[in-house]
Amino acid sequence: MTDNDLTAIYRAYLACLNDRRWDDLGKYVSDDVVRNGERLGLSGYRAMLEADTHATPDLHFDADIVIADGQTVGCRLMFTCTPQHTFLGLEPSGERITFAEHVFYRFENRRIAEVWSVIDKEAIRAQFQEQGS
Amino acid sequence: MTDNDLTAIYRAYLACLNDRRWDDLGKYVSDDVVRNGERLGLSGYRAMLEADTHATPDLHFDADIVIADGQTVGCRLMFTCTPQHTFLGLEPSGERITFAEHVFYRFENRRIAEVWSVIDKEAIRAQFQEQGS
Repeated sequence: MTDNDLTAIYRAYLACLNDRRWDDLGKYVSDDVVRNGERLGLSGYRAMLEADTHATPDLHFDADIVIADGQTVGCRLMFTCTPQHTFLGLEPSGERITFAEHVFYRFENRRIAEVWSVIDKEAIRAQFQEQGS
Repeated sequence: MTDNDLTAIYRAYLACLNDRRWDDLGKYVSDDVVRNGERLGLSGYRAMLEADTHATPDLHFDADIVIADGQTVGCRLMFTCTPQHTFLGLEPSGERITFAEHVFYRFENRRIAEVWSVIDKEAIRAQFQEQGS
Protein backbone atom coordinates (compact mmCIF):
# COMPACT_ATOMS: atom_id res chain seq x y z
CA MET A 1 0.00 0.00 0.00
CA THR A 2 1.44 3.40 -0.94
CA ASP A 3 1.36 6.52 1.19
CA ASN A 4 -1.32 7.85 -1.17
CA ASP A 5 -3.50 4.77 -0.56
CA LEU A 6 -3.15 5.30 3.19
CA THR A 7 -4.10 8.99 3.06
CA ALA A 8 -7.11 8.05 0.88
CA ILE A 9 -8.26 5.55 3.51
CA TYR A 10 -7.70 8.15 6.22
CA ARG A 11 -9.75 10.77 4.36
CA ALA A 12 -12.55 8.21 3.93
CA TYR A 13 -12.42 7.67 7.71
CA LEU A 14 -12.83 11.43 8.29
CA ALA A 15 -15.79 11.50 5.87
CA CYS A 16 -17.32 8.63 7.86
CA LEU A 17 -17.02 10.72 11.05
CA ASN A 18 -18.39 13.85 9.39
CA ASP A 19 -21.37 11.87 8.05
CA ARG A 20 -21.91 10.26 11.49
CA ARG A 21 -21.94 6.81 9.84
CA TRP A 22 -21.09 5.09 13.12
CA ASP A 23 -22.08 1.64 11.84
CA ASP A 24 -19.28 1.95 9.24
CA LEU A 25 -16.61 2.87 11.80
CA GLY A 26 -15.33 -0.73 11.96
CA LYS A 27 -14.16 -0.43 8.34
CA TYR A 28 -11.55 2.06 9.50
CA VAL A 29 -10.92 1.31 13.17
CA SER A 30 -9.58 -1.92 14.65
CA ASP A 31 -11.63 -3.89 17.19
CA ASP A 32 -8.77 -3.48 19.67
CA VAL A 33 -7.94 0.17 19.04
CA VAL A 34 -5.75 1.91 21.64
CA ARG A 35 -5.94 5.69 22.12
CA ASN A 36 -3.35 7.57 24.17
CA GLY A 37 -2.38 4.34 25.89
CA GLU A 38 -5.95 3.30 26.72
CA ARG A 39 -7.43 0.19 25.08
CA LEU A 40 -10.81 1.64 24.11
CA GLY A 41 -11.73 -0.99 21.54
CA LEU A 42 -14.06 -0.15 18.69
CA SER A 43 -17.11 0.26 20.97
CA GLY A 44 -15.28 2.61 23.36
CA TYR A 45 -13.88 4.60 20.45
CA ARG A 46 -17.36 4.92 18.95
CA ALA A 47 -18.76 5.96 22.34
CA MET A 48 -16.11 8.71 22.59
CA LEU A 49 -17.00 10.05 19.13
CA GLU A 50 -20.73 9.88 19.85
CA ALA A 51 -20.22 11.80 23.11
CA ASP A 52 -18.13 14.47 21.34
CA THR A 53 -20.70 14.91 18.57
CA HIS A 54 -23.54 14.97 21.10
CA ALA A 55 -21.75 17.76 23.00
CA THR A 56 -21.00 19.58 19.75
CA PRO A 57 -23.52 18.60 17.04
CA ASP A 58 -21.77 20.79 14.44
CA LEU A 59 -18.37 19.15 15.04
CA HIS A 60 -16.65 18.83 11.65
CA PHE A 61 -13.30 17.10 11.16
CA ASP A 62 -11.33 19.32 8.78
CA ALA A 63 -7.90 18.00 7.75
CA ASP A 64 -5.46 20.89 7.42
CA ILE A 65 -2.29 18.77 7.00
CA VAL A 66 -2.26 15.03 6.24
CA ILE A 67 0.96 13.07 5.81
CA ALA A 68 1.62 9.35 5.59
CA ASP A 69 4.83 7.36 5.96
CA GLY A 70 4.81 3.57 5.99
CA GLN A 71 1.89 2.54 8.20
CA THR A 72 1.66 5.85 10.04
CA VAL A 73 -0.56 8.85 9.32
CA GLY A 74 -0.11 12.27 10.91
CA CYS A 75 -2.79 14.92 10.73
CA ARG A 76 -3.43 18.47 11.87
CA LEU A 77 -7.20 18.65 12.30
CA MET A 78 -8.95 21.99 12.62
CA PHE A 79 -12.33 22.42 14.29
CA THR A 80 -14.71 25.36 14.30
CA CYS A 81 -17.79 24.50 16.30
CA THR A 82 -20.28 25.58 18.94
CA PRO A 83 -20.34 23.19 21.91
CA GLN A 84 -23.78 22.79 23.51
CA HIS A 85 -22.89 20.54 26.44
CA THR A 86 -19.78 19.77 28.52
CA PHE A 87 -17.06 19.22 25.91
CA LEU A 88 -13.73 17.54 26.70
CA GLY A 89 -14.44 18.20 30.36
CA LEU A 90 -14.94 21.95 29.83
CA GLU A 91 -18.16 23.94 30.20
CA PRO A 92 -19.13 25.74 26.99
CA SER A 93 -20.08 29.40 26.74
CA GLY A 94 -22.55 28.77 23.90
CA GLU A 95 -20.32 30.61 21.44
CA ARG A 96 -18.24 29.48 18.50
CA ILE A 97 -14.70 28.24 19.13
CA THR A 98 -11.76 27.21 16.94
CA PHE A 99 -9.06 24.77 17.95
CA ALA A 100 -6.58 22.22 16.60
CA GLU A 101 -5.93 18.54 17.24
CA HIS A 102 -2.61 17.02 16.19
CA VAL A 103 -2.88 13.27 15.88
CA PHE A 104 -0.83 10.28 14.78
CA TYR A 105 -2.32 6.93 13.77
CA ARG A 106 -0.67 3.55 13.34
CA PHE A 107 -2.51 1.41 10.81
CA GLU A 108 -2.65 -2.38 10.73
CA ASN A 109 -4.39 -4.17 7.85
CA ARG A 110 -5.79 -0.86 6.56
CA ARG A 111 -7.43 -0.04 9.90
CA ILE A 112 -6.44 2.31 12.74
CA ALA A 113 -4.83 0.25 15.49
CA GLU A 114 -3.33 2.96 17.68
CA VAL A 115 -3.93 6.70 18.10
CA TRP A 116 -1.84 9.38 19.79
CA SER A 117 -3.76 12.63 20.06
CA VAL A 118 -3.02 16.04 21.53
CA ILE A 119 -5.94 18.47 21.52
CA ASP A 120 -5.27 22.16 22.11
CA LYS A 121 -7.51 22.24 25.20
CA GLU A 122 -5.66 25.32 26.43
CA ALA A 123 -7.08 27.22 23.42
CA ILE A 124 -10.60 25.90 24.11
CA ARG A 125 -10.34 26.84 27.78
CA ALA A 126 -9.11 30.35 26.89
CA GLN A 127 -11.97 30.90 24.42
CA PHE A 128 -14.62 29.68 26.89
CA GLN A 129 -13.19 31.94 29.61
CA GLU A 130 -12.91 34.98 27.35
CA GLN A 131 -16.50 34.55 26.17
CA GLY A 132 -17.77 33.88 29.70
CA SER A 133 -16.14 37.00 31.17
CA MET B 1 15.37 14.57 -1.39
CA THR B 2 13.78 11.37 -0.05
CA ASP B 3 11.65 11.09 3.08
CA ASN B 4 14.63 9.37 4.73
CA ASP B 5 16.86 12.35 3.94
CA LEU B 6 14.29 14.68 5.48
CA THR B 7 13.94 12.65 8.69
CA ALA B 8 17.77 12.55 8.94
CA ILE B 9 17.91 16.36 8.71
CA TYR B 10 15.12 16.60 11.29
CA ARG B 11 16.93 14.29 13.71
CA ALA B 12 20.09 16.39 13.28
CA TYR B 13 17.99 19.45 14.19
CA LEU B 14 16.81 17.74 17.39
CA ALA B 15 20.43 16.84 18.26
CA CYS B 16 21.34 20.52 17.76
CA LEU B 17 18.61 21.49 20.27
CA ASN B 18 19.64 18.81 22.75
CA ASP B 19 23.28 19.95 22.52
CA ARG B 20 22.20 23.63 22.89
CA ARG B 21 24.23 24.50 19.79
CA TRP B 22 22.25 27.70 19.22
CA ASP B 23 24.80 29.13 16.78
CA ASP B 24 24.07 26.16 14.47
CA LEU B 25 20.29 26.67 14.54
CA GLY B 26 20.34 28.56 11.22
CA LYS B 27 21.45 25.34 9.45
CA TYR B 28 18.04 23.88 10.20
CA VAL B 29 15.68 26.84 10.63
CA SER B 30 14.82 29.46 8.01
CA ASP B 31 15.53 33.15 8.65
CA ASP B 32 11.79 33.84 8.20
CA VAL B 33 10.40 30.91 10.18
CA VAL B 34 6.71 31.10 11.14
CA ARG B 35 5.41 29.23 14.21
CA ASN B 36 1.69 28.79 14.84
CA GLY B 37 0.97 31.71 12.51
CA GLU B 38 3.51 34.05 14.11
CA ARG B 39 6.55 35.18 12.09
CA LEU B 40 9.22 34.66 14.75
CA GLY B 41 12.19 34.63 12.41
CA LEU B 42 15.34 32.75 13.35
CA SER B 43 16.21 35.13 16.21
CA GLY B 44 12.73 34.90 17.76
CA TYR B 45 12.72 31.13 17.36
CA ARG B 46 16.12 30.90 19.05
CA ALA B 47 14.94 33.22 21.85
CA MET B 48 11.92 30.92 22.43
CA LEU B 49 14.15 27.83 22.68
CA GLU B 50 16.63 29.61 24.95
CA ALA B 51 13.78 30.69 27.25
CA ASP B 52 12.38 27.13 27.37
CA THR B 53 15.78 25.63 28.18
CA HIS B 54 16.47 28.34 30.76
CA ALA B 55 13.16 27.49 32.48
CA THR B 56 13.91 23.77 32.20
CA PRO B 57 17.67 23.16 31.97
CA ASP B 58 17.16 19.38 31.62
CA LEU B 59 14.74 19.76 28.66
CA HIS B 60 15.47 16.93 26.22
CA PHE B 61 13.75 16.57 22.85
CA ASP B 62 12.94 12.87 22.50
CA ALA B 63 11.34 11.86 19.19
CA ASP B 64 8.78 9.11 19.79
CA ILE B 65 7.27 9.09 16.27
CA VAL B 66 8.84 10.77 13.23
CA ILE B 67 7.25 10.66 9.79
CA ALA B 68 8.05 12.53 6.59
CA ASP B 69 6.02 13.00 3.43
CA GLY B 70 7.20 15.32 0.66
CA GLN B 71 8.45 18.49 2.36
CA THR B 72 6.53 17.91 5.61
CA VAL B 73 7.70 16.25 8.82
CA GLY B 74 5.39 15.22 11.64
CA CYS B 75 6.70 14.32 15.08
CA ARG B 76 5.43 13.19 18.46
CA LEU B 77 7.98 14.57 20.91
CA MET B 78 8.09 13.34 24.49
CA PHE B 79 9.56 15.36 27.34
CA THR B 80 10.45 14.33 30.86
CA CYS B 81 11.91 17.27 32.73
CA THR B 82 11.96 19.33 35.90
CA PRO B 83 11.04 22.98 35.25
CA GLN B 84 12.85 25.44 37.52
CA HIS B 85 11.20 28.69 36.41
CA THR B 86 7.88 29.71 34.81
CA PHE B 87 7.49 27.29 31.91
CA LEU B 88 5.03 27.84 29.05
CA GLY B 89 3.28 30.35 31.27
CA LEU B 90 2.79 27.85 34.11
CA GLU B 91 4.39 27.93 37.56
CA PRO B 92 6.42 24.77 38.27
CA SER B 93 6.16 22.69 41.41
CA GLY B 94 9.86 21.75 41.35
CA GLU B 95 9.00 18.14 40.54
CA ARG B 96 9.46 16.01 37.43
CA ILE B 97 6.79 16.13 34.73
CA THR B 98 6.12 14.24 31.48
CA PHE B 99 4.25 15.62 28.51
CA ALA B 100 3.93 15.38 24.72
CA GLU B 101 4.21 17.88 21.89
CA HIS B 102 2.79 17.01 18.48
CA VAL B 103 4.32 19.12 15.78
CA PHE B 104 4.32 19.49 12.00
CA TYR B 105 7.07 21.23 10.03
CA ARG B 106 7.12 22.45 6.43
CA PHE B 107 10.63 22.44 5.02
CA GLU B 108 11.96 24.71 2.27
CA ASN B 109 15.49 24.22 0.91
CA ARG B 110 16.26 21.71 3.70
CA ARG B 111 15.33 24.17 6.45
CA ILE B 112 12.24 24.52 8.62
CA ALA B 113 10.08 27.30 7.17
CA GLU B 114 6.83 26.80 9.10
CA VAL B 115 5.89 25.04 12.34
CA TRP B 116 2.51 24.02 13.73
CA SER B 117 2.80 22.84 17.33
CA VAL B 118 0.33 21.64 19.93
CA ILE B 119 1.79 21.07 23.38
CA ASP B 120 -0.19 19.07 25.92
CA LYS B 121 -0.27 22.00 28.38
CA GLU B 122 -3.34 20.47 30.03
CA ALA B 123 -1.15 17.54 31.15
CA ILE B 124 1.54 19.93 32.45
CA ARG B 125 -1.04 21.98 34.32
CA ALA B 126 -2.56 18.83 35.87
CA GLN B 127 0.85 17.56 37.02
CA PHE B 128 1.83 20.93 38.53
CA GLN B 129 -1.52 21.15 40.35
CA GLU B 130 -1.37 17.56 41.61
CA GLN B 131 2.16 18.07 42.91
CA GLY B 132 1.29 21.43 44.44
CA SER B 133 -1.72 20.10 46.36
